[in-house]
Amino acid sequence: MDYDRPLFYRVMRYAAEAERDTIDMVSGSPDWEAPESLRRGLREYADGDADSFQYPPSAGLRELRTEIAERRNVDRRQVIVTNGTGEANYLGMAAALDRDRGEEVILTDPVYPYYPGKTDLLGGTASFVPTERDGQLDPEKVREAASEDTGLIVVNTPNNPTGAVYPRETMEALVEVAEANDAVLLADEVYDHFDFSGRFESALTIDSDHRIVTSGFSKSLAITGFRVGYVILPEELVDPARTRHMLVNVATSRPAQAAVLTALRETSPEYYAEVRDLLRDRIETFTDALDAAGAEYTTPEGAFYVLARFEDFPGTLSNVERLIDEAGVAGMPGEAFGSAREDWFRFALVTPRAEEAADRLAAFFD
Amino acid sequence: MDYDRPLFYRVMRYAAEAERDTIDMVSGSPDWEAPESLRRGLREYADGDADSFQYPPSAGLRELRTEIAERRNVDRRQVIVTNGTGEANYLGMAAALDRDRGEEVILTDPVYPYYPGKTDLLGGTASFVPTERDGQLDPEKVREAASEDTGLIVVNTPNNPTGAVYPRETMEALVEVAEANDAVLLADEVYDHFDFSGRFESALTIDSDHRIVTSGFSKSLAITGFRVGYVILPEELVDPARTRHMLVNVATSRPAQAAVLTALRETSPEYYAEVRDLLRDRIETFTDALDAAGAEYTTPEGAFYVLARFEDFPGTLSNVERLIDEAGVAGMPGEAFGSAREDWFRFALVTPRAEEAADRLAAFFD
Repeated sequence: MDYDRPLFYRVMRYAAEAERDTIDMVSGSPDWEAPESLRRGLREYADGDADSFQYPPSAGLRELRTEIAERRNVDRRQVIVTNGTGEANYLGMAAALDRDRGEEVILTDPVYPYYPGKTDLLGGTASFVPTERDGQLDPEKVREAASEDTGLIVVNTPNNPTGAVYPRETMEALVEVAEANDAVLLADEVYDHFDFSGRFESALTIDSDHRIVTSGFSKSLAITGFRVGYVILPEELVDPARTRHMLVNVATSRPAQAAVLTALRETSPEYYAEVRDLLRDRIETFTDALDAAGAEYTTPEGAFYVLARFEDFPGTLSNVERLIDEAGVAGMPGEAFGSAREDWFRFALVTPRAEEAADRLAAFFD
Repeated sequence: MDYDRPLFYRVMRYAAEAERDTIDMVSGSPDWEAPESLRRGLREYADGDADSFQYPPSAGLRELRTEIAERRNVDRRQVIVTNGTGEANYLGMAAALDRDRGEEVILTDPVYPYYPGKTDLLGGTASFVPTERDGQLDPEKVREAASEDTGLIVVNTPNNPTGAVYPRETMEALVEVAEANDAVLLADEVYDHFDFSGRFESALTIDSDHRIVTSGFSKSLAITGFRVGYVILPEELVDPARTRHMLVNVATSRPAQAAVLTALRETSPEYYAEVRDLLRDRIETFTDALDAAGAEYTTPEGAFYVLARFEDFPGTLSNVERLIDEAGVAGMPGEAFGSAREDWFRFALVTPRAEEAADRLAAFFD
């Protein structure tokens, strides 16, 4: 099985071992600073008493679940704090499939590769609906693909890798499709703080017991290594998901939960706005330089990835390696995300050298 | 499903809500201090650069895997750092069952309740071999129980709840049984630092590709809430376990890994010896008082639990609640650990008030 992470690591290792200076646009790891309150929260935790180093509640620190529930306008009981959004997606997908109402999992193409990976792990069967040229998902195509075999539909908005932000009508239609087929819609909203379109709306605003939402703090607080995420479940799926969480992980790491709790309470909206401004600047300078290189590209409405295509140079792993060796820029091959973007490369804007990277690409393709 | 943790929580909540002062001997959470170096490691991590807050390698920080591999005398490649010993057991059990060489899982009775829980989750079928009166496991009984349907044998030594430490001959015989039936022996050694018998030997000293060892730092560093454990796998099971770890959790929380790395490097043997001395004292005072109460009990060879039995007062949940209400002592009901110890109670020596608790029990049963 060739999932996202191994390919990430393979590309990153290749880049690290390259002779020349390489600009890393591979990973989804922010290069900006976490909020200062997060560091303070972690220091304060380090000075706590012996009892605070012991098991937290399996579903997560009560205060953290309260903060999340208040922000997301749900009942605290619906929230499980997980080992990153990765575990949140795993728990949500498992809870949906364990209902035994269909083992088919509808995914998009392009797709975040962990979704088909988790589908395999959970014994489901993946079925792919292609997205539109601009990355948007036509819910009518999902409606056509869905049947009584469908147990689960997984979407990601704002989307990795396309940068699309699905409008509310799309999400409403997807929830309808899930309800009509006794399936569950799982919306992974981990990039919810990175909406440049102004039209992102959480699926939580659509009331349904056929809807699961996952998210986390890896991107919004710039802490992919802390592994703190959460899943918000309909009432009837809470207990099965809690049981699985307990049997797999017992609980989520407490120092990380404590630091996130402090950061959530004390980080001002300006922090998030400044990161968005930084990313808007990077998107502009990077895509301007891609224009100069004559490349086709997507301008993300959300998240922080740009897909780009160069004439007669498809997005294969070997071409990724050529770009590292000959242009000094490391991206992800489009073929990592399914069949729909095989001609493309994904560049993550997690480096202050985005403009320089685009200039290098322009020079290479000149 | 009624697993260990919910029952823990149920008893702990009952104790917390009790009118009278109650001595908590329910959980397996140490009440002693983590090493000072662990706190320092966490503080230093909190002051690190933005990059150190991002994804660690999925299998664990390289330096941490190196420290573990050196201590356990295995190849670093065999080590995966997990979200506590809980995830380590889940990964090891899944890797053994995914070989498709038998779905039966042989467990002991009494049993740590997570093992049958994980067996269910993974689609295996649990089969129980009763242990001897003193908590020892007769490998001949495991040999008789094993067949070509057996895919996995799970043991815990030093044992929770019996306190037994299995001698080397037992472990060798169990590995042989696993090999003879193309099964895998998984030895959970999370209490490896709490051996009072002097005869504990890790299953790692028995060379076999039918043997998995799990352990962690929850108990030895007094940090059950940090969730750092590890699994050591035979070469052919490393990749499947890495893949599952990645798909479920992506990686183990990095602040916790960093703190454990510092503590591992800088904690002197005296720290561990002092905790053992503390526990030896508690065992002695607690069992002396149980003698005075006329109770039957086990003196643990390892770990930190005492099983005790009182005449005409079986170890049911309702009797646990009576002990809370009428004696002010909270233990775990023996029925939580299978059928073999239904008459017994398990008392965890994780309180400085162990002697007082035994006195209260003596007064209650007087």
